[in-house]
Amino acid sequence: MSTTTYQVTGMTCGHCVSSVTSEVSEIAGVTDVRVDLASGQVTVTSSGDPVDPAQVRAAVEEAGYQLAS
Amino acid sequence: MSTTTYQVTGMTCGHCVSSVTSEVSEIAGVTDVRVDLASGQVTVTSSGDPVDPAQVRAAVEEAGYQLAS
Repeated sequence: MSTTTYQVTGMTCGHCVSSVTSEVSEIAGVTDVRVDLASGQVTVTSSGDPVDPAQVRAAVEEAGYQLAS
Repeated sequence: MSTTTYQVTGMTCGHCVSSVTSEVSEIAGVTDVRVDLASGQVTVTSSGDPVDPAQVRAAVEEAGYQLAS
């Protein structure tokens, strides 16, 4: 199991959290996504190796937000 | 036709705009709802008399936001 935390910018409300959670949850291998709206931290847990950060970035952008770095 | 503008607080993103638009649009007689996110102004157009402000307040609260006054 792997857990990686990303910093996401632009989330302003619970709808934003739902959108990011939904998109990141669709990545193959992801078993849990936790979003903290106040800090912008998105913690992604996967069953095996960490998921490709490029996939996380793409999912966050699909939801309409950006990774901070 | 009647048009009334309300001030709504708490909307922070496009999802919020969608929620308010959807709820207010369900009020009987309402023919158009325009939301300006930056100002928080929600302009409600109805086919006949103005809709009861209490109904607008209830719809805004149902969406999870508040009328400013």
